[in-house]
Amino acid sequence: MIIVMKLSATDAQVAAVVNLIRESGLKEHVSRGSELVIIGAMGDEDLLDASRFEILPGVERVTRIMKQYKIVSRDSHPAGSIIQIRGIPLGGNQIQVIGGPCSIETQEQMNLAAAGVAAAGCRMMRGGAFKPRTSPYAFQGLGVEGLEFFQTAAKLHNLPIVTELMDVRMLDTFMEYDVDVIQIGARNMQNFDLLKEVGRVNKPIILKRGLSATINEWLMAAEYIAAGGNHNIIFCERGIRTFETAYRNVLDVTAIPVLKRETHLPVIVDPSHAGGKAWMVPALAQAAVAAGADGLLIEMHPNPAEAWCDADQALSPTQLNELMKTLGAIAQAVGRSL
Amino acid sequence: MIIVMKLSATDAQVAAVVNLIRESGLKEHVSRGSELVIIGAMGDEDLLDASRFEILPGVERVTRIMKQYKIVSRDSHPAGSIIQIRGIPLGGNQIQVIGGPCSIETQEQMNLAAAGVAAAGCRMMRGGAFKPRTSPYAFQGLGVEGLEFFQTAAKLHNLPIVTELMDVRMLDTFMEYDVDVIQIGARNMQNFDLLKEVGRVNKPIILKRGLSATINEWLMAAEYIAAGGNHNIIFCERGIRTFETAYRNVLDVTAIPVLKRETHLPVIVDPSHAGGKAWMVPALAQAAVAAGADGLLIEMHPNPAEAWCDADQALSPTQLNELMKTLGAIAQAVGRSL
Amino acid sequence: MIIVMKLSATDAQVAAVVNLIRESGLKEHVSRGSELVIIGAMGDEDLLDASRFEILPGVERVTRIMKQYKIVSRDSHPAGSIIQIRGIPLGGNQIQVIGGPCSIETQEQMNLAAAGVAAAGCRMMRGGAFKPRTSPYAFQGLGVEGLEFFQTAAKLHNLPIVTELMDVRMLDTFMEYDVDVIQIGARNMQNFDLLKEVGRVNKPIILKRGLSATINEWLMAAEYIAAGGNHNIIFCERGIRTFETAYRNVLDVTAIPVLKRETHLPVIVDPSHAGGKAWMVPALAQAAVAAGADGLLIEMHPNPAEAWCDADQALSPTQLNELMKTLGAIAQAVGRSL
Amino acid sequence: MIIVMKLSATDAQVAAVVNLIRESGLKEHVSRGSELVIIGAMGDEDLLDASRFEILPGVERVTRIMKQYKIVSRDSHPAGSIIQIRGIPLGGNQIQVIGGPCSIETQEQMNLAAAGVAAAGCRMMRGGAFKPRTSPYAFQGLGVEGLEFFQTAAKLHNLPIVTELMDVRMLDTFMEYDVDVIQIGARNMQNFDLLKEVGRVNKPIILKRGLSATINEWLMAAEYIAAGGNHNIIFCERGIRTFETAYRNVLDVTAIPVLKRETHLPVIVDPSHAGGKAWMVPALAQAAVAAGADGLLIEMHPNPAEAWCDADQALSPTQLNELMKTLGAIAQAVGRSL
Repeated sequence: MIIVMKLSATDAQVAAVVNLIRESGLKEHVSRGSELVIIGAMGDEDLLDASRFEILPGVERVTRIMKQYKIVSRDSHPAGSIIQIRGIPLGGNQIQVIGGPCSIETQEQMNLAAAGVAAAGCRMMRGGAFKPRTSPYAFQGLGVEGLEFFQTAAKLHNLPIVTELMDVRMLDTFMEYDVDVIQIGARNMQNFDLLKEVGRVNKPIILKRGLSATINEWLMAAEYIAAGGNHNIIFCERGIRTFETAYRNVLDVTAIPVLKRETHLPVIVDPSHAGGKAWMVPALAQAAVAAGADGLLIEMHPNPAEAWCDADQALSPTQLNELMKTLGAIAQAVGRSL
Repeated sequence: MIIVMKLSATDAQVAAVVNLIRESGLKEHVSRGSELVIIGAMGDEDLLDASRFEILPGVERVTRIMKQYKIVSRDSHPAGSIIQIRGIPLGGNQIQVIGGPCSIETQEQMNLAAAGVAAAGCRMMRGGAFKPRTSPYAFQGLGVEGLEFFQTAAKLHNLPIVTELMDVRMLDTFMEYDVDVIQIGARNMQNFDLLKEVGRVNKPIILKRGLSATINEWLMAAEYIAAGGNHNIIFCERGIRTFETAYRNVLDVTAIPVLKRETHLPVIVDPSHAGGKAWMVPALAQAAVAAGADGLLIEMHPNPAEAWCDADQALSPTQLNELMKTLGAIAQAVGRSL
Repeated sequence: MIIVMKLSATDAQVAAVVNLIRESGLKEHVSRGSELVIIGAMGDEDLLDASRFEILPGVERVTRIMKQYKIVSRDSHPAGSIIQIRGIPLGGNQIQVIGGPCSIETQEQMNLAAAGVAAAGCRMMRGGAFKPRTSPYAFQGLGVEGLEFFQTAAKLHNLPIVTELMDVRMLDTFMEYDVDVIQIGARNMQNFDLLKEVGRVNKPIILKRGLSATINEWLMAAEYIAAGGNHNIIFCERGIRTFETAYRNVLDVTAIPVLKRETHLPVIVDPSHAGGKAWMVPALAQAAVAAGADGLLIEMHPNPAEAWCDADQALSPTQLNELMKTLGAIAQAVGRSL
Repeated sequence: MIIVMKLSATDAQVAAVVNLIRESGLKEHVSRGSELVIIGAMGDEDLLDASRFEILPGVERVTRIMKQYKIVSRDSHPAGSIIQIRGIPLGGNQIQVIGGPCSIETQEQMNLAAAGVAAAGCRMMRGGAFKPRTSPYAFQGLGVEGLEFFQTAAKLHNLPIVTELMDVRMLDTFMEYDVDVIQIGARNMQNFDLLKEVGRVNKPIILKRGLSATINEWLMAAEYIAAGGNHNIIFCERGIRTFETAYRNVLDVTAIPVLKRETHLPVIVDPSHAGGKAWMVPALAQAAVAAGADGLLIEMHPNPAEAWCDADQALSPTQLNELMKTLGAIAQAVGRSL
């Protein structure tokens, strides 16, 4: 931790800062310049509370130096982690595209969706049984019945399934239905009790970025899961909230190389929720793969015009199929495979 | 709902839109201008899904017209609601200041805090037993033991208590400890399962605004609670996330008059979390009262320098006391009392 | 400047950083902790270019310590500056409200406006002759003819005038027409050539905050003016751009106490452009005064419904009159006068 | 324009809206639903001022329907425009990469830079003679001498040159030095007098997006240039300002497909200023090409460690060379060439 003193700070004020550093079990380094005094607190920064220094008289500013994330940090595992999902590797050379509808609607819809996903060459499937909706009057998902439809359809094509967990009380049900990958949605990225619970199970977790979560907060949310013992975490960038109103969110592609540098865990992208319109999905999906994403989460519906929600957001099976070809060529251009 | 057709839209495309409106049980009004065709769908807009129209060929843009919030809308209760908290009115002419520490630490700390809160003229007290912390390695609150300390201290001064609920599984405990007002934190504003549960109890709820929640999303989150039957909801503005890094959040005072216009429910402000520094609190608290807030949530610690978290954010008892005097004068200037 | 080395940094990498510090004429302080090496560069930080350090191998992060603004910093003038505008003090105990229409339209409109401004008790007047409009097809202002109307009307009531300068080539005309206070609009806050030019004249400058300018960038923009020799600078907060769409901008009241701490110069607020609606103006104006603003810039039109632009934003003379009474009471509540 | 009346609107209030529409020379369509009255104003929307309606009693909300941009709209030129720069096409199948240093420093530096740019296969060169700097104490560019160095170096390789114009008074000098493409920087995107002036010359203009400019404002800024007669406009996305502090800006790749849909003009991307770090440039440049950009503006310095500004942002000639190979492969994957 670095404590910068005010221009007017007295020797006694500097001494008070030094005392608090020592009391906390760290060692101080005092640098006196022509104008400023700067004090470094060397040692385990977690023992210090920045606000205890900021309140001391004569202190101008306090800056943390150490990163607060440890288990998820690339420093702890420089080589990069590959997460195995029923034998399918996520985070290595091969890029994984997870396709499927926004909402689980009927058994027939899911059967058609699973067939389309498999036919396009995707190796995993997504679908929502519990839906976070802005309005209490909107369709909230089929619930447990949806999980049933989903597993029935996915098994026909041997596709591992990805679905969102919103309520900590449903975790046992998710385990019972053998959900392969549990998704934590953007609105729950800092639902700390939910993070703690999924940290205790032995399932890969897709952690979506909060609508306005910083990279640091996102890494810390993953650290909550990891601290519970579950290190199988997949980051999913899904667009951030900005001032722009011409599209739903702004897909933050810069987050991809930055996360790949900061953490050893895989990074995937959801181009469907980012843009909010099916016609934007190809451009965004292509950008994500070109920027180094390890996978994609793409909405596909057997018949978009009939979708129960976000009809204008899902690709048709044909569109997904075409996109996969372009993505394969881009993957190759950046030295990977699809 | 208004559907604007593209310049190039054909008659058949217009007809398809009209068909979908009729199928949904609404009535269309087609306006043909020199350049544009605009179609209004009149009737119960909740029966329509905008995305079903946006995907139709020839459609340029779809705009919802009706507000989605109903119970919390001022239209449903033009006079404004006053919420009674153990006989203390919130939402009327008298402004309520809720003081107390960020975290509950010890019985002694809470006793001193309660005494300070009462001495300053506040009629309610706040304190956190369960703390949402960015880091899993930071102090997470005392938990149930904290509720015990809190009630013991508050009862000495007959102060109703306000505390944050993070986990739906703790709701029964909150009822057992007779928490007077349940706070839903900013990070849980769209934790829809939690909102549904507190919609079923008979306790006033303070609903903090999410870090980057729009006014509309915030009203809809309140509608989730209200739809469950609990109409005792208090909005709490606590600063929003922007590009500015010189302070933690930007206190959005504009939200105060806008909410007072849109909803009949009371609106309070948390100046402590907004700015993040004790020295900013008086200016922000004064601005909130001058802009029409019905109450304030202010952090006060008997000894800020020793606080277990956010030491630089809490006022001392003396500072709270002084601030209350200025707030009283401002309340009077705007025709209210403190 | 503080240079934090990577965990893996070698001695040679540390030495390279130290060399660059010495070559730049500063002195290094190297602090070696159990995990990290931190290097402080003490001396005139302006001699260092952070990016030259960031590119060096082994460097994790570089943090500037010194503030870049000097003349406008409160450190250079702790007492606070009062700017005299034809004998009217701005920045002292008395709060100044500058009223007037968005656009100058006709001589008659300006005469009525000036009468209304004076009758409400304002001591200065605003009005736009050159208007920054998003669309090239919108009314761009009357130009020089407008300045003529403005001075004619204002002189009847001995009101100093405030008007916006957009084009550096019009500065001589502004001097000729004896504009009392030159306003630099939000969109030109970082029009550095314009800032340099108004830094060379002897007129007070109102510097509006850019739509998404940080406090630091704003202070640096003022420093551009000050560096030219003109220290008569007035900061004007006018709302910032955020994700919120329910109102035009978010008035950043936190900027008021923060600026008052960082600079000795006066700070005023424009509640009219911030909210964008006349009905929001009283709440925002009241909040600004309660938070410590030194003045306000309020739009008033003799007949808002007939205004040539922003008809829904201007107060009527009666509304301004009423607001002034409330503002007077709030000013008194915070120990000032109106 | 669509005018939505309040639930409580009276017939007289509806009539007043209708009157104002007719007075403005348009035709009204009144739609009466069970709850709401909605009024469409059909005709030339530019004749209407929304604020004149918003101030009328009984009006809830006013929505513009027509796009305000005309010349730059794709509606006016559905096929897409190709801009010729000394025979090099921008906007067609071939993607153009414009390389070169942030600042022009010396003749030698520019000669080396030009050689590196040409060797990497770029067909145009960039370099700054006038630099917009946050601090008045930072290097402001070499000025006219820099243009001299630039042209001398670029001519050796027959590279058209791109450089930024900040001050309207320098336009004649730019014409004299035969600058091939004039860049308008992000901070000047709404410097309307500058836009008007470059609208009168016969040179291609690169219009960078403002730090927090919406797509609509950006298109309207281009319309300012186009309205003056100069239709050779190139949009350049360079990252937007958000809450994220881990990188300088967020590159908004979604803007690429959206602009390509809204305007017929070419769209390029500046990955160097977006991320602010050389190591981020490849990922961002690749994403931009994959998302459909027509070109890139990439910083390259013959010796980045010695650059006079932004040393950590420029690629070396070798890095640019490698990146060009990957970009070529991605261009091919999306059906284009480099």
